[in-house]
Amino acid sequence: MSYSSIETLSWQGDLTGSLNMIDQTLLPTELKVIDCFNVETVWEAIYMLRVRGAPAIGIAAAYGVCIGLQTLPSDADLSAFRNRLNEVTAYFASSRPTAVNLFWALDRMKAKAESLYDTSDVSAIRKSLFAEAQAIHEEDRSICRSIGRFGQELVKDGSTWLTHCNAGGLATADYGTALAVFFAAKEAGKTIHVYADETRPLLQGARLTTWELMQRGIDVTLICDSMAALVMRQGKIDGVVVGADRIAANGDTANKIGTYGVAVSAKAHGVPFYVAAPVSTFDLTLSEGGEIPIEERSADEICDGFGKRTAPAGVNVYNPAFDVTPAELIAGIITERGIIMPVNRENVEEMCC
Amino acid sequence: MSYSSIETLSWQGDLTGSLNMIDQTLLPTELKVIDCFNVETVWEAIYMLRVRGAPAIGIAAAYGVCIGLQTLPSDADLSAFRNRLNEVTAYFASSRPTAVNLFWALDRMKAKAESLYDTSDVSAIRKSLFAEAQAIHEEDRSICRSIGRFGQELVKDGSTWLTHCNAGGLATADYGTALAVFFAAKEAGKTIHVYADETRPLLQGARLTTWELMQRGIDVTLICDSMAALVMRQGKIDGVVVGADRIAANGDTANKIGTYGVAVSAKAHGVPFYVAAPVSTFDLTLSEGGEIPIEERSADEICDGFGKRTAPAGVNVYNPAFDVTPAELIAGIITERGIIMPVNRENVEEMCC
Repeated sequence: MSYSSIETLSWQGDLTGSLNMIDQTLLPTELKVIDCFNVETVWEAIYMLRVRGAPAIGIAAAYGVCIGLQTLPSDADLSAFRNRLNEVTAYFASSRPTAVNLFWALDRMKAKAESLYDTSDVSAIRKSLFAEAQAIHEEDRSICRSIGRFGQELVKDGSTWLTHCNAGGLATADYGTALAVFFAAKEAGKTIHVYADETRPLLQGARLTTWELMQRGIDVTLICDSMAALVMRQGKIDGVVVGADRIAANGDTANKIGTYGVAVSAKAHGVPFYVAAPVSTFDLTLSEGGEIPIEERSADEICDGFGKRTAPAGVNVYNPAFDVTPAELIAGIITERGIIMPVNRENVEEMCC
Repeated sequence: MSYSSIETLSWQGDLTGSLNMIDQTLLPTELKVIDCFNVETVWEAIYMLRVRGAPAIGIAAAYGVCIGLQTLPSDADLSAFRNRLNEVTAYFASSRPTAVNLFWALDRMKAKAESLYDTSDVSAIRKSLFAEAQAIHEEDRSICRSIGRFGQELVKDGSTWLTHCNAGGLATADYGTALAVFFAAKEAGKTIHVYADETRPLLQGARLTTWELMQRGIDVTLICDSMAALVMRQGKIDGVVVGADRIAANGDTANKIGTYGVAVSAKAHGVPFYVAAPVSTFDLTLSEGGEIPIEERSADEICDGFGKRTAPAGVNVYNPAFDVTPAELIAGIITERGIIMPVNRENVEEMCC
């Protein structure tokens, strides 16, 4: 099955339908679509990273809310509806603490409901929320295209880029954020080469980014995370683009663990370091990056991740899933509205508000 | 079996004996000693990293030369002996191009033979070469203890250190170079904490360094390589110590891939970065690090290393086994003769000559 015929996420059926998604934990050796038909299967898919990437998580959670409302009795009143909506959104909020798009999508669904309580009945609100989830999904497609369009202007023909983790079509509705820049550059007729960090512990770069770039005919070379500094020193890298999970009001950016080290190396080698993310990734309630909560995950991801034990039993492990790159290391943030450059509080506010 | 009762390398028997070694590719889940009884098994053990670490490779190669001479007929003349010695040393020189101790040990064995050709017969030279291999082995124990003694003076009680790859007892005769600093600090009554980078692709940090430190009762936390910059930013790291595979005359140091990135991060965070290595690791024929040959290894190590395929079939991979850290990023080089600090051509020459 070719990549273009598969969607990261797709809703099957009408209001009573279910959410299909590619199980990204099985890629690249197996391309399997799973059917999430209740809140537990959606929550598990987000928690286990079967669906990952901030925008895709937001879309999954919005559809997950619709699925959660399917269990309401047909004669439920507004109060029961409200309780169930609060219950479902609180449940999904517990799945991934760092990705702000998750909270953004849940808040948007709740705000939509709030706006209708005075004028609509339960059935009408349910229909409106389903339409809202579809709108979030559709808007993300359009946002990714815009990010690609702005970002590709930074890409010279014949240049070589580095990316970390996977901020591609698999992380979004279909085109990506960081990888959208590469896809759009190719569509604009430019020839580029990309180095992809494998991205330990879960290897999204090795498994997903290389796969997406190969599917779209972009020349890619896989390296271990620890090789990024070397290829920069060798003068091979013209620029870095990564995605983001949450961006504070001053531009400090939380992204997959290892991003900060790449940014430090890029600075040391004079390589421009860009972030590509939709405006929904900004959390203006946070003044700076130190306020972003960082998810810590299980030691097993590091010691038992690949079917073979790779560390002694009982070893202490520190496994933060994200780190924060301070704004001063970021040359620009590529959004669907344009590029924030230089990255500072004033320019972030101007772009987001 | 406890660690202290097992030796990284041990010679079994007399002149006609064989070389036993821990198969380090099986650690930490299996502690197996393999018997290398001909040059092919020794070469394969070096190439496949069953024995690894610059000093341990030197010892293995020296004993390997003795094993290679066992196939000489008892009536071989001096010319046949010389030919066989050249053949065997050339063969071992092809196993790992970056580790200078390999060449140092082979050259030392050849020089010993050269010094005896005028005065001794084949049988006597063989005995002398066996004694030379034993001396290299014994000297390494003593060198490691001295490195530990000098290095531990840099370690404050209650401090936290980071190391990359494995420069421990498993990389040497029994005590290590970088890890010797920690072992000696502990023996001096200091309490320390160590962060160990897992060290992709072959995970020597996860598999070997954590194991050695746990065996010796030192508090260790395993992280992925991509987390080193974060723990430095968090202020958790007081210093870094790593080993070395080859050091140029100006102090530029080749070590396991990823070391350079750690050094760049250490510099950015004001964390002192030390190298611990015996004087035999210096290659004064090389003026600077750019002249050090860097071994590139198979793509399978990155894509197929965990018993499960982790990247798409046919993906391009770049897999350099080492990188070079420039002298200006190194606060000091801890040798068995003392600490080279600051690291520059004059101080290297003074320590080595």
